Amino acid sequence: MPERLVIALGGNALQSKDSAPTAEAQLEVVRQTARHIAEISGRGYEMAVVHGNGPQVGRILLASETAKEVVPPMPFDVCGAMSQGYIGYHIQQALKYALSARNWNCPVVSITTQVVVDRNDPAFQNLTKPIGGFCSKEEAERLEREKGYVMREDAGRGWRRVVASPLPRRIVEIGAVRLLWDHAIVITCGGGGIPVVENPNGTLEGVAAVIDKDFAAELLAEEVGADALLILTEVEKVAINWGKPDQRDLDHLSLAEAARYVEEGQFGVGSMLPKVEAAMKFVRANPGKRAIITSLDKSVDALEGKTGTVITFA
Amino acid sequence: MPERLVIALGGNALQSKDSAPTAEAQLEVVRQTARHIAEISGRGYEMAVVHGNGPQVGRILLASETAKEVVPPMPFDVCGAMSQGYIGYHIQQALKYALSARNWNCPVVSITTQVVVDRNDPAFQNLTKPIGGFCSKEEAERLEREKGYVMREDAGRGWRRVVASPLPRRIVEIGAVRLLWDHAIVITCGGGGIPVVENPNGTLEGVAAVIDKDFAAELLAEEVGADALLILTEVEKVAINWGKPDQRDLDHLSLAEAARYVEEGQFGVGSMLPKVEAAMKFVRANPGKRAIITSLDKSVDALEGKTGTVITFA
Repeated sequence: MPERLVIALGGNALQSKDSAPTAEAQLEVVRQTARHIAEISGRGYEMAVVHGNGPQVGRILLASETAKEVVPPMPFDVCGAMSQGYIGYHIQQALKYALSARNWNCPVVSITTQVVVDRNDPAFQNLTKPIGGFCSKEEAERLEREKGYVMREDAGRGWRRVVASPLPRRIVEIGAVRLLWDHAIVITCGGGGIPVVENPNGTLEGVAAVIDKDFAAELLAEEVGADALLILTEVEKVAINWGKPDQRDLDHLSLAEAARYVEEGQFGVGSMLPKVEAAMKFVRANPGKRAIITSLDKSVDALEGKTGTVITFA
Repeated sequence: MPERLVIALGGNALQSKDSAPTAEAQLEVVRQTARHIAEISGRGYEMAVVHGNGPQVGRILLASETAKEVVPPMPFDVCGAMSQGYIGYHIQQALKYALSARNWNCPVVSITTQVVVDRNDPAFQNLTKPIGGFCSKEEAERLEREKGYVMREDAGRGWRRVVASPLPRRIVEIGAVRLLWDHAIVITCGGGGIPVVENPNGTLEGVAAVIDKDFAAELLAEEVGADALLILTEVEKVAINWGKPDQRDLDHLSLAEAARYVEEGQFGVGSMLPKVEAAMKFVRANPGKRAIITSLDKSVDALEGKTGTVITFA
């Protein structure tokens, strides 16, 4: 049986380093990324890919806000859906080519994916994710009054909308992912998924929220019974005492060690912390399996146990 | 064996009649549409849905152009991918609920879909599709010079970009559609598909073009071996002498009759003509099968032979 992987792709795998990157420049980065993913596929792994969407959905929202006198502004859930189409298109185009260059004719498909969040998630009481552009205090007050947005002053740069980052509870399209799994590389839960809540009558309704893509990948890995969760980021290994003279890169983390380091505040909120927490959640639910945190270009070596940080139950 | 359908959904099934509709208003229309689609599914048909995207991709492009000083403008192929995410999200959310309200737990999934067009298609010599906003003659000349766009004066309203409307040749993600077909309602080829050309080295590359969604639906119907192609539009039946005192609504059209009426110029270019031509193409390739042109609210009756215009080989 081939090993089954869920891969979480970080922003640096999708985004050029320009301050205002064009879609064309991003496609170039995605093409590089696709070569690494194809290499993993070539080693015989079955896989699904979950990608981030922060910069892309930010630009879609900013364009929509800027053009609001000309075109009715798009709700944030729709911006998320649009970013899934945009990034999914680029990944599937680039990945299909990288696979065929290896004579590997595997279907690649990206699925528009809704992820249910809980209206009572404590995250909705503590909004942490800034989205969209900056505005004046007066405009912020108007948006709070007229649209019910929550606006916050952002480090002297102006006012900005903040939304919740709730945990993913259920992947609506999981049935389709399962149907495709054995036969295709599936791109799903892009940007953590389009956040929806479930109404008492059973309807789903989009909400303005940002689901962490590493937690969405973790939920997906549980749902499809993946053997491993591979979280790709900028660094080859997770480190403690990061950036200090006694920085130590970690080859392995048990659940207990990881919990202790989290407690010590070793991992950056909004950067390494959610990755370590998602990895911990996966191995807690699957004591015999592993999560790996490493960089894109080390991913094959890490899967073979040569590098990266491996997180296991014990 | 259940009958297998490909349904082509026209703009009126997705779009409220406001001059500047919000995404929320469109979702309301999509919810109505979903009830009809669920009703068809409830009668035991297997199906894929192809939707148009004209107004939606137009607004995405217009927002992108309007915000171009703030956010790098999006290429038109990426705008198409974004519209697939946007409309696919709304349809799958609404359709899933409409199905579950009938206690029918069928997966619904929309796939980001690329459709290959031929660089040598004569349509690239005769650009017919205006896209995006209007501009001045000076701006048009700048865009022609700097971006290589083809701009055309549009009935005194200003200058506007025009692109080709080539025929669809190949659905890149057809393998995934086939895998899903027996188990899910698949939304694919949205807006006719994201148009791509194939380079000599095998890479696919997005192009600025508009593929007719009825022709894309026809190609899909051929590729999946559908029993019927159902093209939904604003009217219950195709008519000849349309809008004249001797208007005649047609219950049935053979290929030969259809060809004669096309020759006579009975069908509006850009409205009924491509629908009739797509229907003709389907029955020419599948002499034992049928295409149906009717309105959304008559679709179940039309499938049962009670109304609509049925196009058959003989």
